[in-house]
Parts: sequence; structure tokens; C-alpha cells
Amino acid sequence: MGNQKIFPISGIRLSSVSAGIKKIGRQDLVLFEICEGASVAGVYTQNAFCAAPVVLSKQHSASKTPRYFLINTGNANAGTGDPGMQAALECCRGLAELTGFETEEILPFSTGVIGELLPANKIVDALPQALEALNDDSWNAAAEGIMTTDTVPKSFSKQFQLAGETVNISGIAKGAGMIKPNMATMLAYICSDAVIDTKTLERLNKQAARASFNRITVDGDTSTNDCCMLVASGKGGLEYSKLSAEQAQEFDHELIDVFTNLAQAIVKDGEGATKFVTIQVLEGQNSHECLQVAYAIGESPLVKTALFASDPNWGRILAVVGRAGLVDFDISKVAVYLDDVCIVENGGLSTSYTEAAGQAVMDKSEFIISVSLGRGQESEKVWTCDLSYDYVKINAEYRT
Amino acid sequence: MGNQKIFPISGIRLSSVSAGIKKIGRQDLVLFEICEGASVAGVYTQNAFCAAPVVLSKQHSASKTPRYFLINTGNANAGTGDPGMQAALECCRGLAELTGFETEEILPFSTGVIGELLPANKIVDALPQALEALNDDSWNAAAEGIMTTDTVPKSFSKQFQLAGETVNISGIAKGAGMIKPNMATMLAYICSDAVIDTKTLERLNKQAARASFNRITVDGDTSTNDCCMLVASGKGGLEYSKLSAEQAQEFDHELIDVFTNLAQAIVKDGEGATKFVTIQVLEGQNSHECLQVAYAIGESPLVKTALFASDPNWGRILAVVGRAGLVDFDISKVAVYLDDVCIVENGGLSTSYTEAAGQAVMDKSEFIISVSLGRGQESEKVWTCDLSYDYVKINAEYRT
Repeated sequence: MGNQKIFPISGIRLSSVSAGIKKIGRQDLVLFEICEGASVAGVYTQNAFCAAPVVLSKQHSASKTPRYFLINTGNANAGTGDPGMQAALECCRGLAELTGFETEEILPFSTGVIGELLPANKIVDALPQALEALNDDSWNAAAEGIMTTDTVPKSFSKQFQLAGETVNISGIAKGAGMIKPNMATMLAYICSDAVIDTKTLERLNKQAARASFNRITVDGDTSTNDCCMLVASGKGGLEYSKLSAEQAQEFDHELIDVFTNLAQAIVKDGEGATKFVTIQVLEGQNSHECLQVAYAIGESPLVKTALFASDPNWGRILAVVGRAGLVDFDISKVAVYLDDVCIVENGGLSTSYTEAAGQAVMDKSEFIISVSLGRGQESEKVWTCDLSYDYVKINAEYRT
Repeated sequence: MGNQKIFPISGIRLSSVSAGIKKIGRQDLVLFEICEGASVAGVYTQNAFCAAPVVLSKQHSASKTPRYFLINTGNANAGTGDPGMQAALECCRGLAELTGFETEEILPFSTGVIGELLPANKIVDALPQALEALNDDSWNAAAEGIMTTDTVPKSFSKQFQLAGETVNISGIAKGAGMIKPNMATMLAYICSDAVIDTKTLERLNKQAARASFNRITVDGDTSTNDCCMLVASGKGGLEYSKLSAEQAQEFDHELIDVFTNLAQAIVKDGEGATKFVTIQVLEGQNSHECLQVAYAIGESPLVKTALFASDPNWGRILAVVGRAGLVDFDISKVAVYLDDVCIVENGGLSTSYTEAAGQAVMDKSEFIISVSLGRGQESEKVWTCDLSYDYVKINAEYRT
């Protein structure tokens, strides 16, 4: 990821520059320019303490179709009260003055430390350089520019043929900690050149975010700044509204594939992560209880430290399933698998299980934990990582 | 704790011996002998995968008044299905044969690794030695005998005068990880010489467990083996049923004090813990939402790593309050304090706050995080610890 080919999206230009927000010299300001006639959809964090830029982005996009995304790292501008709102607004006004667009046509985004006031003047000072640098081929630079504790830039792009037209979808995302998105995750930007009206785009964005960013957890902590923006520039030949049901389904599938690749890249780069684990919960009564069990496993410190140790300590998985809060739960129907290795069947240790077989799966860097509840037809899947010394190190040293 | 004076409880004898369950030579088998006429109350884990000994203890105590607690460490006998039930039963039968009591008068308890079959023969072989060693002064040895990843034995004892009588209450507990009790925590045994009928004792046990063991969290993981047993031997002069309302309240208060001291000892010895933190949530609409916020803070990996780093990173606390799921939540009324230092008021950084003042509190090994929700009259308190390298180390290396 990150250094793969990113297909440019006609109608979208980007730049990544240094505004010196936290560290001198590092890229910390990313600008997206969106052409006239494009559609834009956003989903935002449901954290009650959502950051000033999130509040402002919601307000602005409700009144105008956005023409710029202005994104900074190094400072989340969250928990900053009214001065934080003023700082975010000042950045938008600065860009409006330079471009001739209205303040409401600019959406601000921030990521970094919570609770410090955003240095709006540094951002405004860097805007001429950011506008100067705009071009349609800066996706990889933008993916690097929005990183915080990320160790790799995250981007994904695909080009495919549909209804006789070439379609391009490209996206970037950031995130490694404070990751349990609830509607979206901090800073994902996905653009397509397809023609899609705003209402449809909003539906597609929600649907894709639900299947991807809303199915990952690094540490169970939902950020104050999560945003996932989907843009359809409309400069390509494909018109979504003219697709057959089957073709629309294919487009949706490709879009979800881009979202999922970006979401999984966040988990793979989870703070201190050494494992990428898919948690699959099958045969639940409903989707809600499947997710309840899947997240309980994915957020259990005991399961996550066992994953780090490559220890097939399946008792910890069982203990979590037992405390996940299912009502009228008959444990004698529960089965647990590590990839294809059955560990638990009928609620107890499988007679066919050997520690060697469990160990072989646990030694892999990517595998699947499947839990079958034996009480229904629904299933859900979430992605997570382990809890290592480095998670503690990164988060104990973050501000210093 | 641990090496303080433990007042013997007339009618209760204990012993701690080595059965070689996991490691040769270490004390791993503890026996409680309870006199005739005593009352016994228990609260047990609500984990659906409760261990075989928990299932059996519930069954046995429903049919007979218990005369022995038989407790082993090194093996939790959980997730072991029917063979696990048979192994627990075999231990009870062995003791019944040696003592002439009925199998149902014996309650088994286990703690240690989940998912390995209990070596019942080793336990049965050690029973004659355990019976031989019984005496009323082995409380400290018993507190050591039930340890697993605990680094210190946990006991608490008090003697006080009430209604003209001398009352003794003594208790031991164990636990350091997989700690978020839900009705009780693994292996707490509290005995008094007061005369208390079983029904009253059950009420007192639930009330005291709710105020103590059910208000602590180390890692949010509820064990499969939690049990909290309260015994009233009735050999002392105090009769609970004859107390005035005021005197009964004083007894309840003393009892809760013993429970709370044991519960706090578990948090202070939390796996890898370097800090003991009280989380107080004030001005909530109801007790439930206060606990919801308190546990969200106490279980957040980001807050816990900041505690470990002594970093007054209050933005993380705010982010957790925001994601705790309160409905119709007006963040502008929220205040956050570290001890007496106001960090957040009216939902944003307090104008009086200085980083030096926050740092001074965070540098302490024990302090209080207070969150005032500004929407009601209810309050709750939970106790927790930090998340350190050593938590990861202990849990990554537990089985090896």
C-alpha cells in the first residue's frame, strides 16, 4: 500500500505541504480541490465531544456543495471550545479569500493531539503554497501528509470497466490508534470520477463505511475527529443513475472494496500491531449480537495480549464470549475455530484439537477467529490487531 | 496488606498445602472448614461460560449448608465440559469420604489457566495433609495459597465493638487480571463470627459485593470463575437480628469496609499496575449512566496508557466521555477534575488550568479523576489501575 499506482480522478487536484504545525519541515497540511458539479458525501464521528472542524464541516456541507477539503495533522482542534471553532473558521476564511469561493464551500479537518488550540495563522500562511502545489497526481503525497502515529501511508485505487465506461476510484486514509470508528474513521477521502447525485452518494458512503470503517477496532476508543468523505467528480463517463440493478451492485461492490482495503490498512498499521485478525461471528440471532460478541473479543486486552504472544489461549476467547452479554445463551452450542482448526465444539474443548494445530495458526501474522453461536442465521465480521508492548510505548509517549 | 494481623474467626479453620497442580512445591490447595450452625452466602460470576466448580458450588449450596470450601490454584477448570464437572465432583467426593460429610456439603473453587482438565487425583491425594493442617490461624497462609498472577497476598481483618459484643470479620481475596467482576470477583472469602441467618447474609453479601468487587476493573475482562463467599459462623456474641436499625447499619458499614479493602487490594495489585485511580462520576441522571461513563474511562487503553505515563492528557478522558453512549448529552455542562485541579469546565479547557498543576496530580501513585455530567443528582465510583508494559508482558507470557 501507499506506493502502489494511484489512478488520478479527473476533477480532483491535491497538494501536501508543510505548515510547521507541530514539527518544522514535516508535511502536515493537505488540500483537496473539487471541481464544479461534483457531489460530496460525508459521515462523521458520533463522539459527543466531536471536534470543532467536524462541527464546522457538517454545517458547511449542509449549506453548500464543498469545493475544498483543508486537512491538518499535528493538532485535532478538539475539546477547544469556542476558540477552537474560531480557529477552524479562520482557516476556511483564509482559503476563501485566496480562491474567491465562499467560506461555506470549504470543509476543515484536523487530526493530532486533543485539547490544544489550532495555530490558524500557521495554516493560513501556508495556503498560497498549498494552492500553488495543486495537481491531480499528489495522492501518495497526500496520504503521507495526513499521517500521525501511522507508520505507513494508506491509499488504495482501482480502475475498472462498467457499462462500457472506464471508472476510477481512489482513496486515502489515516489512523492507527483511538480507532473504533462509529460511522466513519478519522480522515478517509475516497474519490471517483463517476457521475452520482448527492443523495445517492450519501447512501453509498454510509453503506460502504458500515461495511468497512465501522467494522474495525484497534483499541475500542472512538475518536473525536473521525470523518469519511466520498466525492464523485462526475468527470468520467459512468452515470450511476443509468446503471442496471446488476451494474449498480457491481459498482457498490468495487466501492466497498476500496473502503475495505483502506479500513484494513488502518488495522494492519494499528499502534504496535504485529497481527491482523478477522473476527467472524456466525449463527447469531441478529446482526447486533454478532457485533457485540465480535467487538468484545476484538477489544479484550487478554485476547489481544494472547494474540501478541502467538498463544492459542482459547480459554480467553471463551471467557469473552461468555461475558459479552447475550441473553438466554446456551453455551453448549458454541463452536470456536482458528482458521480451519476447531478448538471448541459443543461449548467445550474439541476432541480433535491439538495444541500444535492451534499454535500453527497463531504463529501466522494474519488469521481468522470464528465463533459460531448456534442460535440463528446472522453473521458479522470485524477486523482487529493485537496489543503489544509498542501500543503501550506509543501511547505512553505520544505527547512527549 | 497480607502481613497485617488477621483476627481468627471462631468456628472457622483453614489450611494451605501443596498438591503439585502446576508447580511442584508451591502452595496451591486451600481448605476452609466451617462449623455446624454457620450461615453461608455466595455470589458468583455472571459469565455464561462459568467454570465447572462454579456450577457445582451453586448446586451444592442450594441443597445443603456448606461445611468445606476446597480451593485450588493453577487450573481454572473452566471450558472443560463434562470431564471438568466430573473432576470437580471427584475432589468433593474425596473430601466427603475422608470427613464423613456429604458431597453436597463441599463447595469446590478453582482459579488458573482456562481450558485444561483439572488433575483431580493430585488434589485428592493432598486432602489428608490439608485436613491435618487445619487450624484457626492460617489466614495469611490461605491468602498466599490462592494467589495466581497476584504479587501480594490480599487479606483484611477488623475487630470492633457493637451492641456490647466483640465482632470479628476477616477476609482474603485473590485476583490481578481478568478483573471486571460482575456480581463478585474470583475467590474472595470473608468470615465473621456474628450470628446471621442465611437470607440476611445473602442480602449483605450482595450489597457489599456491589459496593466493592463490582466497582473495580483492571482490564474489563470478567472471569469465568469469580466467586465471593461470606460466612457467619455464629460463634461470637453478636446476633444481627437483634440489632437496632442504626446498629445494623454500623455492621453493614464495617462489612463493606472489609469488602472494599479487599477489592481495592486487587486493583492495587492489578497486573502491571503502577497507579491506583478512583474514577468518580457525579451529577448523572441515574446510577447506570454514571457507571457507563466510569467504566468507559477505566477501561480505555488510551486513558490507561496516559495514566502509566503520568501524562495529564485530559483530551483522552474527554474523548471517552463523549463516546460512552449517553443520550441527549449536553457536553457544555461537563467538568473534569484531577483531584482538586479543574481541567475541564463547561465542556472545554478550564481557564485556571495549568499543565504543571495537572502534572503534579498525575505524578502521584494514587489520585481521583472526577467527571461531573451536570445533568442529575446521581453519582458512582469505580477503582482502576493503569495499563503498563508489564500488563502486556504478564499476559503475553502467562502460559509459558
